[in-house]
Amino acid sequence: MQDDHDPAAARRAYETVDIDGWTERFALLSDPTRLRLLLCLHYMPGLNVGQIANVTEVSPTVVSQSLRRPRGNGWVVSEKDGREQIYRLTDERLHAMLHAIGARHAGE
Amino acid sequence: MQDDHDPAAARRAYETVDIDGWTERFALLSDPTRLRLLLCLHYMPGLNVGQIANVTEVSPTVVSQSLRRPRGNGWVVSEKDGREQIYRLTDERLHAMLHAIGARHAGE
Repeated sequence: MQDDHDPAAARRAYETVDIDGWTERFALLSDPTRLRLLLCLHYMPGLNVGQIANVTEVSPTVVSQSLRRPRGNGWVVSEKDGREQIYRLTDERLHAMLHAIGARHAGE
Repeated sequence: MQDDHDPAAARRAYETVDIDGWTERFALLSDPTRLRLLLCLHYMPGLNVGQIANVTEVSPTVVSQSLRRPRGNGWVVSEKDGREQIYRLTDERLHAMLHAIGARHAGE
C-alpha cells in the first residue's frame, strides 16, 4: 500500500456497494434452515409448504416461520395454485447470491 | 412443479452447497461496519489499523474489534510490516462474495 493513498477514493469504491441492502440479505442467509429452504425454492420454484417441508425435512411450521421474513421483504412471493399457496424466490440479488455459492436449478 | 418430484434429488442439489461454511460467512458479512472494513481491505490489501480507520471513518478500536472474528477464522491475516501490523483478506469465499456484490480492486 502506498503512503499517498487517497482515503476518499477508497471510500468511494465501497460506497458503490449497497451496504444496507446486502447486509439485510446476508443476515437472512446466515440462518442454516432458511438457507436450505431458499436453496430448495431456488432449485424447484413453485413448491407449496408441504412439498418444501418434504424436500428439506423441516416441519411445515418452521417452513412457514422461516419464509415469513423474506416474504415480508418481497424477496419470496406466494401465489394461489388451486387450493395451495406456492412459493417462488423473486429477489434477483438473493438469486445471484445462491448461484455464487454454487446453487443450481433443477435439470441443470 | 411436477407431482412426481423426487425430494431426495432436490435435497442432494442443495447438499452440494457447504451450508455451515457459507452461513458462517454470511453472519460475518451481515454487520454493516464489518462489511465496510472488508470491502476496504479487499480494495486496498495491506493497510494497517490506522489506515483502515482513516479510509472507513471507523475508530481504530472498532476496526480491531470487528476484524477479530475474521482473523480468528483465518479469513483475514495480519502480518508485520516494519513496526506496523498490516491486514489482508485471504479467504477465497469472502473474496468471491465481495465481488458478487459489486466490489472492485484499486486500479480496476
